Amino acid sequence: MADPAGSLITLLTDFGSVDPYVAEMKAVILGICPHAGIVDVTHGVDKYDVGMGAFLLAEAAPFFPDGTVHVGVVDPGVGGTRRPVVIETRRAIFVGPDNGLLVPAAESSGLLEVHEITNRSMMLPEISSTFHGRDIFAPTAAHLACGEHPEDCGSKITDYVRSPYRKSTVEGRTAVCEVLHVDGFGNIVTNLTRSHLNRLHLTEGSKVTLTIRGRRLKMRITGTFADLREEEIGLILGSHGFLEIVCREANAGKRLRIKRGTIVRVSG
Amino acid sequence: MADPAGSLITLLTDFGSVDPYVAEMKAVILGICPHAGIVDVTHGVDKYDVGMGAFLLAEAAPFFPDGTVHVGVVDPGVGGTRRPVVIETRRAIFVGPDNGLLVPAAESSGLLEVHEITNRSMMLPEISSTFHGRDIFAPTAAHLACGEHPEDCGSKITDYVRSPYRKSTVEGRTAVCEVLHVDGFGNIVTNLTRSHLNRLHLTEGSKVTLTIRGRRLKMRITGTFADLREEEIGLILGSHGFLEIVCREANAGKRLRIKRGTIVRVSG
Amino acid sequence: MADPAGSLITLLTDFGSVDPYVAEMKAVILGICPHAGIVDVTHGVDKYDVGMGAFLLAEAAPFFPDGTVHVGVVDPGVGGTRRPVVIETRRAIFVGPDNGLLVPAAESSGLLEVHEITNRSMMLPEISSTFHGRDIFAPTAAHLACGEHPEDCGSKITDYVRSPYRKSTVEGRTAVCEVLHVDGFGNIVTNLTRSHLNRLHLTEGSKVTLTIRGRRLKMRITGTFADLREEEIGLILGSHGFLEIVCREANAGKRLRIKRGTIVRVSG
Repeated sequence: MADPAGSLITLLTDFGSVDPYVAEMKAVILGICPHAGIVDVTHGVDKYDVGMGAFLLAEAAPFFPDGTVHVGVVDPGVGGTRRPVVIETRRAIFVGPDNGLLVPAAESSGLLEVHEITNRSMMLPEISSTFHGRDIFAPTAAHLACGEHPEDCGSKITDYVRSPYRKSTVEGRTAVCEVLHVDGFGNIVTNLTRSHLNRLHLTEGSKVTLTIRGRRLKMRITGTFADLREEEIGLILGSHGFLEIVCREANAGKRLRIKRGTIVRVSG
Repeated sequence: MADPAGSLITLLTDFGSVDPYVAEMKAVILGICPHAGIVDVTHGVDKYDVGMGAFLLAEAAPFFPDGTVHVGVVDPGVGGTRRPVVIETRRAIFVGPDNGLLVPAAESSGLLEVHEITNRSMMLPEISSTFHGRDIFAPTAAHLACGEHPEDCGSKITDYVRSPYRKSTVEGRTAVCEVLHVDGFGNIVTNLTRSHLNRLHLTEGSKVTLTIRGRRLKMRITGTFADLREEEIGLILGSHGFLEIVCREANAGKRLRIKRGTIVRVSG
Repeated sequence: MADPAGSLITLLTDFGSVDPYVAEMKAVILGICPHAGIVDVTHGVDKYDVGMGAFLLAEAAPFFPDGTVHVGVVDPGVGGTRRPVVIETRRAIFVGPDNGLLVPAAESSGLLEVHEITNRSMMLPEISSTFHGRDIFAPTAAHLACGEHPEDCGSKITDYVRSPYRKSTVEGRTAVCEVLHVDGFGNIVTNLTRSHLNRLHLTEGSKVTLTIRGRRLKMRITGTFADLREEEIGLILGSHGFLEIVCREANAGKRLRIKRGTIVRVSG
């Protein structure tokens, strides 16, 4: 996959698993760069949910080998004035719409430059107004995986759309954070990291109070699921470095009726 | 993927994403033709729905490189008298049951000859009565991808089952067409193409009247989603060349309660 | 795929299709063993359901080429005292948690030795307490696919957790068996095989009585779906060698309201 004949391309979309749209993107890629390896990140992003897509891409991208080309297509503005972009970073290349989808992943990969894609030789000969994933992003990614450079795609731009995330804030002994994602196990991922916990003087074993929609919940920070009693709710620094609200062998998201975007206050 | 050691094989089935049936087909393929590249078109066809499978395969196939071997398995007649077939076309090869599933895609690839698969050396040594996808179609596709020829599979036949589609008709200023598919975004794909629109003297910007189950709806033909107001319903010539009824950032299929097979009258 | 540069790795998890966890495992694998071929068995195992995962893995594994490395991750005990293991068999290698998940598949592949995974050079440098699929099992599988040996992973153990299946029993003319799986078509897979049928003197064409939750149902054993009338319920020796309760072009599981684990008595 890392040989000169073609490298790794990942795909993240909101296309779901029934329609053949993902297959069409792969067909286009393999027609241009036959030896590219293709890995699906997910196609289960909620329709049009740029923030959810941005989070999932940023979770997965750091684990891929250097030089991987990541394609993201959550694109409610397709066919309008939003620009197609390629983002060059120290470790990887990102291709997709200029709507913030790629930015959190690109920033944590070491964002270097953003280029608008205007070079028609990077695209399919015929471009539909509704499916740029297949007609612009897939062929551009294939050309990049087979040796073209981001600067060949078009002019550098600096006014690209920034990250769709809100930042968490820490004041005194309280952090105000946001739920970035509730995963399939019901684990509730917040945007608090170890550095926030350090500023709150919290560590494994600490007892904390969470305030969610006016309701107060007491729980402790634990090192692993196995430290919790069955169905106990607790906090854990998850495998992606974010503080998660979890429930052992049960679904914390359903128990607490929490969704992406919910605001959570954490007090030590 | 296009090297002599093995080429590209696609899979389309109604097997869903839980059972290991697709994996078993891939295992059989890779045991016979280790360097074949395998791409999933979809495994989310409604169970036994040959027409839906035919549509999705016909949508995806044109984007794959020449020489691709497409396997389709939506096969309610498995184990009965329906024949297994291989269809040679100018651009690609199609493998599956003789029930019409492969025909729309094969016809648009330039259908040349249909062969019944009877040569046992193309199949697994043991053939179940319930899973020809694994025991006949996957190994046949693998042998074809690794250099065997369609005529090696068995005798040429001409009485193969034809396309499961109804044709749309145009009379005067009205077309009567059928909904081929409602995609995951709720876009409603009809079997009208640009040539039908030309015969109706309709073009981008035209206002038309749709009649669906006795209800009349006025809307306009537009070039792109971005030309519609948010949640406005309109018509668009989609990325596969069919006229689609769409709703900007909302689900037209749910709004209009339209399913595959619904008859739609379009009047200019 | 069978070349010295890397062989075939399969993945089975309960991670579902939305989260990027499967993609992270693939990323880790391709970083270590870039030419490994990766095939998804399924990611739709019910959360924490070790028995269901064990069944699906055992169904799929026999069809893969010799030397395949199978990774299974249904792992409610992650981060606790359960051990990570690699199981060497005559035909394949299995990697995952020591909770019985891998054992039925390993036994039918010719189980040779079980090793605990303790060698840190087989793992990622940083190991989370919640995602051993990515941090231990994926990298171990990649090292094995690229030439490392199971005995390099750690010490041999003999007290590994055994198969999660109950055995079926035959007394006189009655077998008591268990439903292993209800597939996406509604086919109800029991743990009876041809050898059980032989002991019951049952064969194709035999009439039998099934007793399910006190209800008695008469049906016949048939050779193929096409022998049944439309929507008739019958028994068929399925494509994996197990006796299945099926309904032609309809969902037997829903009709009979049967789930995995239901006890069924079959009398000749």
